[in-house]
Amino acid sequence: MATVDTSIPAKPTGAAAKLAESHSAEHPLKLYGGWFCPFVQRAWIVLAEKHIPHQYVEINPYRKAAEFLALNPRGLVPTLAVPTDAKGKHPKPLYESAVICEFLDEAFADETKFGPRLLPDDVYERARCRLWIDHIASRIVPAFYRFIQHTPDKPYTIEDVRNEFHGHLKTLAKEMDPSGPWFLGDRFSLVDIMLAPWAKRLFLIDHYKPGGVGIPVAGQRGDDEEVWSRWQKWFDAITERETVKQTWSDDEQYIGAYQRYADDTTSSEVGKATRQGKKLP
Amino acid sequence: MATVDTSIPAKPTGAAAKLAESHSAEHPLKLYGGWFCPFVQRAWIVLAEKHIPHQYVEINPYRKAAEFLALNPRGLVPTLAVPTDAKGKHPKPLYESAVICEFLDEAFADETKFGPRLLPDDVYERARCRLWIDHIASRIVPAFYRFIQHTPDKPYTIEDVRNEFHGHLKTLAKEMDPSGPWFLGDRFSLVDIMLAPWAKRLFLIDHYKPGGVGIPVAGQRGDDEEVWSRWQKWFDAITERETVKQTWSDDEQYIGAYQRYADDTTSSEVGKATRQGKKLP
Ligand SMILES: N[C@@H](CCC(=O)N[C@@H](CS)C(=O)NCC(=O)O)C(=O)O
Ligand SMILES: N[C@@H](CCC(=O)N[C@@H](CS)C(=O)NCC(=O)O)C(=O)O
Repeated sequence: MATVDTSIPAKPTGAAAKLAESHSAEHPLKLYGGWFCPFVQRAWIVLAEKHIPHQYVEINPYRKAAEFLALNPRGLVPTLAVPTDAKGKHPKPLYESAVICEFLDEAFADETKFGPRLLPDDVYERARCRLWIDHIASRIVPAFYRFIQHTPDKPYTIEDVRNEFHGHLKTLAKEMDPSGPWFLGDRFSLVDIMLAPWAKRLFLIDHYKPGGVGIPVAGQRGDDEEVWSRWQKWFDAITERETVKQTWSDDEQYIGAYQRYADDTTSSEVGKATRQGKKLP
Repeated sequence: MATVDTSIPAKPTGAAAKLAESHSAEHPLKLYGGWFCPFVQRAWIVLAEKHIPHQYVEINPYRKAAEFLALNPRGLVPTLAVPTDAKGKHPKPLYESAVICEFLDEAFADETKFGPRLLPDDVYERARCRLWIDHIASRIVPAFYRFIQHTPDKPYTIEDVRNEFHGHLKTLAKEMDPSGPWFLGDRFSLVDIMLAPWAKRLFLIDHYKPGGVGIPVAGQRGDDEEVWSRWQKWFDAITERETVKQTWSDDEQYIGAYQRYADDTTSSEVGKATRQGKKLP
């Protein structure tokens, strides 16, 4: 498939444009991102939550510039350039959104300056968070792509994908603190952040796929009343979280950018891996 | 495929039998493992490296006992039971080998009692370790299974798989501290531990596959002399590491247990995912 996804708009819009603009000045800590990318949004939310001084650099990861590949041989956003001396010289690269987010939380750990840590202090609870971050990365996110890339010619029906997706959400919702709103209760954490970008993108499945996300509404949930109402509470809270909104472009932009996913013609690495039933990059 | 891998011997042998025996007494911290499982060996090495008091419980993860599934709904080993009170009651489960290993390092952090920490203190270096642990998990380990499960009817040749596997090893070796022997130089870390079990299992590819692992020997490495000699230095050091040997059963046992992988008839989750070109569990 020769369709290279280089036609997407070059810049964030709406709230994300403002945030990007206010972080456009030269700074040794640089986030290389693409406005449409949910993995980038994870890192961007962490920077915003902790008010970490940085420069946001919008790039198109589908055009692999040599300078970018030198930092990240995988050629994916987010990529972080971390200064290694006081003058901000000799930047060293980091990539993989989960690694970047945990790094930012650890590197900007002073709670008086950067607000609450994003993983609990208790060692067991921290490990439990990493376990559910793994559930998001290895179950929910791949199922999201199978859902939005579903086409009628697939060997499985959209109902199959919907059921699989619902199952993974319910498994997570059952692990959430019962009163909420966050995974850990009143404490916001990386578990919430790791899933936030896909929560914000669920409306794309409603837009593009027959039957939409299809989470049953109150009163029609049978035995799942409790788990779905817990999910809904989290969903409402995360989509209203200030930093999630700040890192979001205009809805129409996502509708345009995800057309190729919905048609299953995208040649992004994530899209191709999903089409081939392979592990995501 | 109805072949359930429940025929493997029930107990570790050799050095691992001794280690298991010496940790057979009741203890609130329990590692549920299978002697043949490389993911288990990771956690077992961490317990041994840090001399962490624990009970080792050998189970067969292919028979999903209800008690085991209650701890780990994924039904995979390693699974760790962590006591949550001083009396060792109310154990809480952890699973996913990488999560377990990092948990053990953080929970038994006192260096005077448990020896050196297994991730560096420097925040950037710690993140860099997590990045290369991700490389091992997402590149090297899946390629190992594609290699050992290669059969002549596959749509790709064994040379393709060998090249892919070599490529991922070289990418890692280039990131290793040049003097070694460990990834971080003279400091042993989780990066070394994460790959150790598959390093120990490379002889199975030599045993089962035409041409074997095929890493070129000194003098026949051309431009890759430096990177392959660095790999060899690490390989020699890790396969001689005391805790790696302590957690190892007799070689013949692995040859028997991996026959089904070599024939590509295994019905383990890892084996099936590899056969279907899917992400490993
Ligand atoms: N595992 C990576 C995934 C990042 C990723 O897939 N980013 C996409 C954009 S959403 C990308 O850079 N794609 C470039 C390509 O597909 O060539 C992470 O968590 O950071
Ligand atoms: N991602 C898991 C993988 C663990 C795993 O696959 N363990 C295998 C044994 S080597 C298992 O329990 N298999 C049971 C099955 O396939 O049903 C981890 O890192 O702990």
